Amino acid sequence: MKALVYTQTVPIPKITNPTDAVVRVTKTTLCGTDLHIRKGDVASCTPGHILGHEGVGVVHEVGTSVSRFKKGDAVLISCISSCATCEYCRRGVPSQCTTGGWILGNEIDGTQAEYVRIPHADCSLYALPQGVDEASLIMLSDIFPTGLECGVLNGRVQPGSTVAIIGAGPVGLAALVTAQFYSPAKIIVLDADINRLMVASQMGAHDIVMSGTHGSTEGTVIRDVLGLTDGKGCDTVIEAVGIPATFKLAQRLLAPVGVLANVGVHGSKVDLFLDELWSKNITITTRLVDAVTTPMLLKMVEADKLRPKQLITHAFRFNDIEKAYQVFGAAQEHKALKVLIQM
Amino acid sequence: MKALVYTQTVPIPKITNPTDAVVRVTKTTLCGTDLHIRKGDVASCTPGHILGHEGVGVVHEVGTSVSRFKKGDAVLISCISSCATCEYCRRGVPSQCTTGGWILGNEIDGTQAEYVRIPHADCSLYALPQGVDEASLIMLSDIFPTGLECGVLNGRVQPGSTVAIIGAGPVGLAALVTAQFYSPAKIIVLDADINRLMVASQMGAHDIVMSGTHGSTEGTVIRDVLGLTDGKGCDTVIEAVGIPATFKLAQRLLAPVGVLANVGVHGSKVDLFLDELWSKNITITTRLVDAVTTPMLLKMVEADKLRPKQLITHAFRFNDIEKAYQVFGAAQEHKALKVLIQM
Repeated sequence: MKALVYTQTVPIPKITNPTDAVVRVTKTTLCGTDLHIRKGDVASCTPGHILGHEGVGVVHEVGTSVSRFKKGDAVLISCISSCATCEYCRRGVPSQCTTGGWILGNEIDGTQAEYVRIPHADCSLYALPQGVDEASLIMLSDIFPTGLECGVLNGRVQPGSTVAIIGAGPVGLAALVTAQFYSPAKIIVLDADINRLMVASQMGAHDIVMSGTHGSTEGTVIRDVLGLTDGKGCDTVIEAVGIPATFKLAQRLLAPVGVLANVGVHGSKVDLFLDELWSKNITITTRLVDAVTTPMLLKMVEADKLRPKQLITHAFRFNDIEKAYQVFGAAQEHKALKVLIQM
Repeated sequence: MKALVYTQTVPIPKITNPTDAVVRVTKTTLCGTDLHIRKGDVASCTPGHILGHEGVGVVHEVGTSVSRFKKGDAVLISCISSCATCEYCRRGVPSQCTTGGWILGNEIDGTQAEYVRIPHADCSLYALPQGVDEASLIMLSDIFPTGLECGVLNGRVQPGSTVAIIGAGPVGLAALVTAQFYSPAKIIVLDADINRLMVASQMGAHDIVMSGTHGSTEGTVIRDVLGLTDGKGCDTVIEAVGIPATFKLAQRLLAPVGVLANVGVHGSKVDLFLDELWSKNITITTRLVDAVTTPMLLKMVEADKLRPKQLITHAFRFNDIEKAYQVFGAAQEHKALKVLIQM
C-alpha cells in the first residue's frame, strides 16, 4: 500500500493484538503537530513511522476480542487510543492510558496511509452516524475534542463569562466554536494573522485583536483586552499557540479567579509570573486531549448544531500529500486552516 | 496606646465607617509575611503602618451598621476583610474583595497593637467559642485557613491520594494537619530543616524527605519521592515555600493529572516547564486565602479534632515584640514555628 512514511510502499498492517482493528482509510488530514514531528520536535516519534492521527475509514479486519465493530463498518478514528481498563482510562483520562494515549502517528504508524492498525479498537473507533458528511466527522478525530476539552472545559467557560482565545488556528477556532455551547458573554480572539481573525469573526468571536509580530506590542494588546472587559481581564484565557510569548500574554489577560487553559504544544519552558499571580486565585491547566467528548460532539454534528467542515480550506488527493504539506506549512500565505486528504 | 509601627505611641483607632469595629487585642502573633514586609518586599504595605493580620480580642466599639457584634464580645480577627456585597465576595472569593481582602497590617493598620480597627466587622470577625484556648483560635486568623484553602482544597486532596508538601513551616504544617481531614493514602513532607521534619512526623507525615541546601540534590529528592509513590509522583503537590527552586521541584514531583497548589508568597517569576507538562493534564493553582473555611475550622477546634496550638513554640509579652521578631527571624536556630504575643 502507499503511505506517507516519507513516501514508500509498505505492507498492509496486520492485527497484532486481539483488540486491534485494521481500518482502510478513506479520508485523513494534516495537523500542526505533524509539522512539528517532521521538523524533529516531538521526541516520542522516531523516524520511519507513518504520520497522521486523524481519519475516517472502513473496518477491514478485526482482532478476536473486538466486539463493537466488524469488517465493513464505517468508522471515525480517534487520535487517542484507550484500553478502557488501566487506572487512567478508568479515571476518565485516556490521554494518559498506559498502553495507549496519543500513540497513533507518533509511537506507532498513523493514518496518512491506505490502511492503519488501530489498537484497543472498541474504545478508539466510533461508528459513523448516517447522513453526515465524512469531511465534518474527521474534524472530530482531534481538533474539536482538543479545542473543547483542553480549552473550553478546562478553561471553565460559563454563561456570562469573558473568554480570550490566543491563536486562531484550527484548534483555537474549534475552541471558539465549542465555547459558544456554554453561552459566554464575550469571546475575544487574538492572532497575528488578519485572515484568521476575519474567520474568527465569522465563526462567532465578539471581538478580534491583532497581536504578535504583525500586530501591536504586548502593552497595546493588553490595553485593548482590558478595555473590552471593564478593566478586569478575562475569566478564561485559552492559549492555543504554544510559544513563550503567547503564554506570557495569556497570564497578563487573566482576571482574578480566572483560568488559563493551555492548549498549545510547547517545546520549551516558559516564564510564570508568580510574583504577580500568587495572590490572584488563578488556575492554570494543561491537557493532552482525552477525546472523551467525542460522543457529545457526534451528537452535536448529527443535530446540525456543529458544522466542523467549515474549518477545511483545502483538499488534496493522497498522491499529492507532499503538496498538501507545502500548503499547510505556509498556512498564512495560502489562508489554510485544515487540509483534507482524500484517499 | 502602644503599637508596633516600629514602636511608637499612637492614638487608639476610631470608627471611620459605620461597618467598622474597634477591637482591643488580647493576643496577636507574627507571620512570615511580616518579615517580608519589614524587609520591604511587599509593595502594597507602605512604611508607617502597624503590622499584624492575626489576633483575638474583645470588641471595644462598633459602628452603627454592625449588627452581629457588640462591645464586650470576644472575637477572632480574620486576616481577610470581607464586605460581603461586592462581586468577589458574592462569588465566595473575599480575598479579592474590592474594598477588603488582605488589607489588615498591609494597606491599613494591623493587630500588633493594643487596639485595631476592623473594617466590614460583621464578616471579618468571628465570635469566639466558649471553653477553647485563645492561643488555639488565633491560629485560625490566617495560618490554618491558608494551609487548608490554598493547599489542601486547591490541591484537591482526596481519600487514597498521594500528597507532597514542600516546606514544613507553619503554613506547610497547617496543610499537613488539615490534609488529614480528607484521608489521603500518603503525605510526604519535604524541608531542609531536620527539626521541622521531625515536627512534621509527629503531626502525621507518613514520610519525610530532606531537601534544599542542607539536604540532598534535586535529583536525589525527586528519586526519593518517586520511590515512595510507585514511580508515579504525587497527585497533589503543595508548594509552601515561595522561591523558584521549590516551585521547580514541585513540578517534578507531580503525577500525571496531578495538582500543584501554590501557597508560597513569591517575590519573582519562576520557570514553568510546559515542554514537559503540556501533555500531562496537570493543574496549577494560586490563592490568597479567602478565609471561607474559618467556620469549619472553628467547629473542628470545638470538636477537639483540631488542636492548632501545637504550632506555637514561643510566647512573648507585647513589650518584648522586637525580641520575638529576632527569634522568629532566626526560626531554624530557635526551632521556632508560631510566636505568640500576649498583650
